[in-house]
Amino acid sequence: MRYRQSLIPTLRQDPAEAEVVSHRLLVRAGMIRQVARGIYDFLPLGLRAVRKVEAIVREEMNRAGAQEILMPAICPAELWQESGRWEHYGKELLRIKDRHERDFCFGPTHEEIVTDIVRRELHSYRDLPLNLYQIQTKFRDEVRPRFGLMRGREFIMKDAYSFHADFADCQREYQNMFATYQRIFDRCGLLYRPVEADTGAIGGTLSHEFQVLADSGEDAIVSCDKCDYAANVEKAELARSPESDVQSPKSHATAPLRKVHTPEQRTIDEVATFLGEPRERLVKTLLYVTDTGALVAVLIRGDHELSEAKLKNVLSCQGVALADEAAVVEATGAPLGFAGPLGVKASLIGDWALRGTHGLVCGANERDYHLTGLDQERDLSLLRFADLRQARAGDACPRCQGGVFTAHRGIEVGQTFYLGTKYSTALNATYLDAQGQQHPMEMGCYGIGITRTVAAAIEQHHDGNGIIWPAPLAPVDVYIVPVNWNDAAIRQTAEELYTKLGGAGLEVLLDDRDERPGVKFKDADLLGIPLRVTIGTKTLARGMVELKGRTETQATEIALAEVVATVARAHKGAASA
Amino acid sequence: MRYRQSLIPTLRQDPAEAEVVSHRLLVRAGMIRQVARGIYDFLPLGLRAVRKVEAIVREEMNRAGAQEILMPAICPAELWQESGRWEHYGKELLRIKDRHERDFCFGPTHEEIVTDIVRRELHSYRDLPLNLYQIQTKFRDEVRPRFGLMRGREFIMKDAYSFHADFADCQREYQNMFATYQRIFDRCGLLYRPVEADTGAIGGTLSHEFQVLADSGEDAIVSCDKCDYAANVEKAELARSPESDVQSPKSHATAPLRKVHTPEQRTIDEVATFLGEPRERLVKTLLYVTDTGALVAVLIRGDHELSEAKLKNVLSCQGVALADEAAVVEATGAPLGFAGPLGVKASLIGDWALRGTHGLVCGANERDYHLTGLDQERDLSLLRFADLRQARAGDACPRCQGGVFTAHRGIEVGQTFYLGTKYSTALNATYLDAQGQQHPMEMGCYGIGITRTVAAAIEQHHDGNGIIWPAPLAPVDVYIVPVNWNDAAIRQTAEELYTKLGGAGLEVLLDDRDERPGVKFKDADLLGIPLRVTIGTKTLARGMVELKGRTETQATEIALAEVVATVARAHKGAASA
Repeated sequence: MRYRQSLIPTLRQDPAEAEVVSHRLLVRAGMIRQVARGIYDFLPLGLRAVRKVEAIVREEMNRAGAQEILMPAICPAELWQESGRWEHYGKELLRIKDRHERDFCFGPTHEEIVTDIVRRELHSYRDLPLNLYQIQTKFRDEVRPRFGLMRGREFIMKDAYSFHADFADCQREYQNMFATYQRIFDRCGLLYRPVEADTGAIGGTLSHEFQVLADSGEDAIVSCDKCDYAANVEKAELARSPESDVQSPKSHATAPLRKVHTPEQRTIDEVATFLGEPRERLVKTLLYVTDTGALVAVLIRGDHELSEAKLKNVLSCQGVALADEAAVVEATGAPLGFAGPLGVKASLIGDWALRGTHGLVCGANERDYHLTGLDQERDLSLLRFADLRQARAGDACPRCQGGVFTAHRGIEVGQTFYLGTKYSTALNATYLDAQGQQHPMEMGCYGIGITRTVAAAIEQHHDGNGIIWPAPLAPVDVYIVPVNWNDAAIRQTAEELYTKLGGAGLEVLLDDRDERPGVKFKDADLLGIPLRVTIGTKTLARGMVELKGRTETQATEIALAEVVATVARAHKGAASA
Repeated sequence: MRYRQSLIPTLRQDPAEAEVVSHRLLVRAGMIRQVARGIYDFLPLGLRAVRKVEAIVREEMNRAGAQEILMPAICPAELWQESGRWEHYGKELLRIKDRHERDFCFGPTHEEIVTDIVRRELHSYRDLPLNLYQIQTKFRDEVRPRFGLMRGREFIMKDAYSFHADFADCQREYQNMFATYQRIFDRCGLLYRPVEADTGAIGGTLSHEFQVLADSGEDAIVSCDKCDYAANVEKAELARSPESDVQSPKSHATAPLRKVHTPEQRTIDEVATFLGEPRERLVKTLLYVTDTGALVAVLIRGDHELSEAKLKNVLSCQGVALADEAAVVEATGAPLGFAGPLGVKASLIGDWALRGTHGLVCGANERDYHLTGLDQERDLSLLRFADLRQARAGDACPRCQGGVFTAHRGIEVGQTFYLGTKYSTALNATYLDAQGQQHPMEMGCYGIGITRTVAAAIEQHHDGNGIIWPAPLAPVDVYIVPVNWNDAAIRQTAEELYTKLGGAGLEVLLDDRDERPGVKFKDADLLGIPLRVTIGTKTLARGMVELKGRTETQATEIALAEVVATVARAHKGAASA
């Protein structure tokens, strides 16, 4: 590529609308432009990065035995009605009427369409297994699209769907896809964790999110420092320690229950400060309503955070929500801020960490009063316990001996999921076994956010000067900076190197602009190209040019005759790093 | 690819809904499946053919200096309102409201979006020229989608848009794209003609349709047998012969105008037969209404067909339509079938072919009567003439000496078009010239129907047994038929050849099914794979296998050791043919 002939509209200023670094840098580097909220143009360099991810995904999916197909973007409502999703999918589904007033949607995923293919074409156990994937533009009508490619409305996704005769074979393919995803994100040059995801009613470990680690990630995750276990903090299992988590002072063991005046002290922090107690000695009493209308008082240690995902699973319900003020007043007889377990009109459930504790503080269900000296075994002997809190750094790993959680922020770029027979049953995708018996097929699905991976790569790899592409995703491999385009010797050398490096299979961007070297260096850093070759007057007079990696502070001088071999070697090293 | 692991659901029967051969064969060969009217799944082999076309298009567009970008599928109405197309585009535009009730459309082309990019990023003559293209799924809500991929609603298109400082540079790029399109369709292995297209008010020769020749084509075209000239019959210019086209017999020269009784004789054929005159001695009087409401009587020789496109251009109006019965009765005072030029209450225009003719028959504007002996110079001396008829085989070429038209049917797979400043003016995409003066940019646009090209290739290349892919578009290069998969020696040879041919860079489909040889041969022909290698018991015992090209009737025996080299050579020959 030649810079002057290319559309690379870099900006010196940060775009006002960009809240996260990948959005800011993609816009500043002239790689994307917003067309409408959450809808973007991919300009040449941005699209090249997208294509790099696509190519890696395609190669690895093919290698894993999956077959690429392409299903339509515009999907008929009938199939979505068969699965029930036409009704249950919310406003994120872009619904469309055609000129004949027939209902369609812009498919956000394609379970129905692919199951329809399979039910029409496959009928015998001999036709199974099958894994079909596509790489396609999707649309999800996010209510608040933001963060550029991190959460756009229109985006590119790889979605795969596998079909099997039985659970064991589905499990085998799940492992195959899991390994494939590891290869894909390894090849992308990203630091990531496959984390166990909430599988709801299904249980087991057949759902993983692939999280790219980055401080700006939306998801809070923990991973074990000794074994492979990693999970969203909302979902991470916690080791149940045999004794209580808090070693209360001896004096607390026999403390009586006592009502204390805590005027206007409502939050955990307020009460802890007012009473001079550490936060972990307090009990939060959170009132929740389930989707079936049941009221539940959830007890959590003051320094812990409730995981609503765990609560939902424990209560075996579809959804939970904090009770509104009226319900709290009704259940506790007190205003907000004074709820407690004793006498509350709701069923009680407590987090494991409260088991066997004593000397605790909780609300008194009375305005401006709390109770001290709460003893679980004495005062709440019938309390039901469960794993209800979010995991955090320092928690013990539930899977290995001695492992401890460390905390990260993550960006979900892929998900693998065991679907069971949900869609095959709804759409009647069955096969005949060797005995002629009919069964619904077992299914798995496996997604990768292609454009989101590009954004995540930048969230993980950047500095104050711009993007730092992992070599495998870089739009081009080498950036040639002739410091003075009007100098005939420099220009001629630049052209020669451009031709030779291209001939060696490298993708090269030649900065043929009549700009000051500083402008070119700034753009080279902003664009994040892994290798930069600078052709300067003095070095060239000595028959040398400078080579610098994007993250190196010092350039290295190389003899002209060595440039192609040295750059090719550096590229190969970076690409396989 | 291994057949058993692949989704290639071939059918023995023609699908009922398929009207054209490409639709029929794509479905039968298991390459596409219908999801809704005009909306298809591309199964693995079908998608491979699509990708082959895409790759050729991408390579040649890049070679020509165009830059690939990707614009959104879902486009905001605001930009379409700026260009005026939101109002003028008909029901083929799929209009969509998002969750916030904002208007969007599924972009059928992207002039507005690309012009918006350019007006934001380019401001100087130094930034020009620029040619941006994308390969993207489009949607056009055809009222009667049919013919499979030939006229689907959802389809894949390459659309390119170029921006220039002046007309001369736009013309240069137009020629560049024209040559690029020739390279693309040459490389696709298709027989095609670039035909001059109707440029409406713009004039000149800056619009071409690239027509793949096939008997089933929707478009009727003529091409010169001596020079490069080719055009749609509706648009082809005709050489104006100095004398009248019809040499009337001497006796006609002095024939008086005479009213003859022609009871219930209304059509050209009826009147010609009834009066015993050849069709070319009759005059058709066609009453048309323009979009501005003017009534025009158009005179055409009885054996000629009117070109409405030419009529529209000659009348400088946006649209013409045949007048309804009431208007005809009103203008002629007679029922349908008896209209004539004398006394009709409408302005008159005649085709060139009628100039200087005499002894003609026309309607009398009276029920059951026609006139004979019509003499143009005597009876219609003030008649305005124009080129109004469709071209046909045998017409003289207007561009060269002695060339004669031959007639073809064509499938439009690409179009190049000079847009002028229509969009740049509407969207205010301007640049400053060297003197600091502001000008709207000149634009061109260039489309290729990717999925349509796949269908057109089949329309042009097939036989009674199935598809005959041009080698560059074939989903795979070689089809290996082991005649008996249960024979260990055959199976082992098949596996070896599969590995070796793949290693030599060929794409191979191994038919590893436990099927009779006849089934495999039938599928190989149906799928249209260029080369077939058959491993049979007797030949293998002699150390030989059979190689057969898809269109060859005889297979050739090759020694096992020679297979890879021979097949690679045959493939190379086919690919460059």
